[in-house]
Amino acid sequence: MQNSSQLIVRSSELKCRGKVKTIQETIEKILCDVLQEKVKLTVSGRTDSGVHALNQAANFKTNSQIPLKKIQKALNSLLPKDITITGINEVSEDFHSRYCAKSKVYRYFILNSSAPCAFLNKFAWHIPYKLDFKAMRQSAKPLEGRHDFKSFCASGSRVKDTVRTIKKLVIKESSYHLTPNTYNLTPRRLIVFDIEADGFLYNMARNIVGTIVEVGKGRLEKGALKRILFAKDRKSAGPTAPAKGLFLAQVNY
Amino acid sequence: MQNSSQLIVRSSELKCRGKVKTIQETIEKILCDVLQEKVKLTVSGRTDSGVHALNQAANFKTNSQIPLKKIQKALNSLLPKDITITGINEVSEDFHSRYCAKSKVYRYFILNSSAPCAFLNKFAWHIPYKLDFKAMRQSAKPLEGRHDFKSFCASGSRVKDTVRTIKKLVIKESSYHLTPNTYNLTPRRLIVFDIEADGFLYNMARNIVGTIVEVGKGRLEKGALKRILFAKDRKSAGPTAPAKGLFLAQVNY
Repeated sequence: MQNSSQLIVRSSELKCRGKVKTIQETIEKILCDVLQEKVKLTVSGRTDSGVHALNQAANFKTNSQIPLKKIQKALNSLLPKDITITGINEVSEDFHSRYCAKSKVYRYFILNSSAPCAFLNKFAWHIPYKLDFKAMRQSAKPLEGRHDFKSFCASGSRVKDTVRTIKKLVIKESSYHLTPNTYNLTPRRLIVFDIEADGFLYNMARNIVGTIVEVGKGRLEKGALKRILFAKDRKSAGPTAPAKGLFLAQVNY
Repeated sequence: MQNSSQLIVRSSELKCRGKVKTIQETIEKILCDVLQEKVKLTVSGRTDSGVHALNQAANFKTNSQIPLKKIQKALNSLLPKDITITGINEVSEDFHSRYCAKSKVYRYFILNSSAPCAFLNKFAWHIPYKLDFKAMRQSAKPLEGRHDFKSFCASGSRVKDTVRTIKKLVIKESSYHLTPNTYNLTPRRLIVFDIEADGFLYNMARNIVGTIVEVGKGRLEKGALKRILFAKDRKSAGPTAPAKGLFLAQVNY
């Protein structure tokens, strides 16, 4: 008889498929084929439709003795090319990818350039107006820490406790690697948000980004975020940023 | 009556569409709609099926007096999202985007990591084996300069004069911006080739990359490229690298 062990898989997923099957179902099906047994994946949490994942995490129990590296290779060769298994590790019997998560990091990409980019179309929110980067950075400060984020929670959500802790909210500028500056192209400014929190309310990351962008456009004052936080009303915040620019970047245990 | 002027458009194009219409036809049609006149595009050269363009160039004559920035904006709002107009300039009456080109730069991306990447699947050749980067770099040196590149020309090609000048062949290492090193992910090594030449034979860029990769894998010796160049025989060179990793990066005038 073999010992049962519990494994965690990490995967990156590009969400622009028209198929009905979820990524979870797709990975589960191929895991069953590879391990020759029934496998149930426990995912750290669902990402919304259109939201990509750089490093999603999910755990499952197995009796298989196949080496982990071999399982990873087999999965990657059988999975559709828009899903990649980035790692597999053994974890303790009582590990649960959702309940054991200490924090999650969401990353958001804005392409801030007059012309759009054919290559970033599915990965970034294109904003052709000039954004005040410094004002955006300053405005975000009050969000860090433990607060009631009700103003940033989708209005339809049934969650009662809307208090969460944002451990880190970093806004950086970056340049896009596919367009080399050496070839005198229009510079393409990427603005990258990294938001680490102990939990995220429905649409919270996208509502925060959408609101900070309003500051960048000059439609909201620099101190607006503090005011909006206190209002505890979704209507006080800015619009929801499009899903395609959002990535689940990391689940920390 | 208005004066006719000649314009050059620069565009970036993501080639993963299933549609039959070429990018040239698509841009021409929308240009006609925007300028309200019949327009014929002269492109700097066709890129093969599956080969992307960061900065393709094409010229056309027009009687329109619409400001260039406005034409660019109108085109970008009407074009499919996988085609972007990156710039429009006025050029002299006798300008010809093909005959006036002094050189072209092709860029090739290799993802050299054990696991594939869902996000780079359409933009890079994934090679899971360890490549000897130093050997690849050294081996490429003999290709620079004026040579007969017959060994790197697709065997079906009818071109008689296979002498071309490679002005620059640079191989660099880079890291992929979507996967932050801060989140302890498997490092994703990108190997980037930049090949600038006064002209390219059919499949020349992809055959050069495919052959240098054979050196990186240890299947060809470091000095192989010199030998292959002298052989003037396609069979002496390595395989053709996949189209999806290749980008027309720049046309220089």
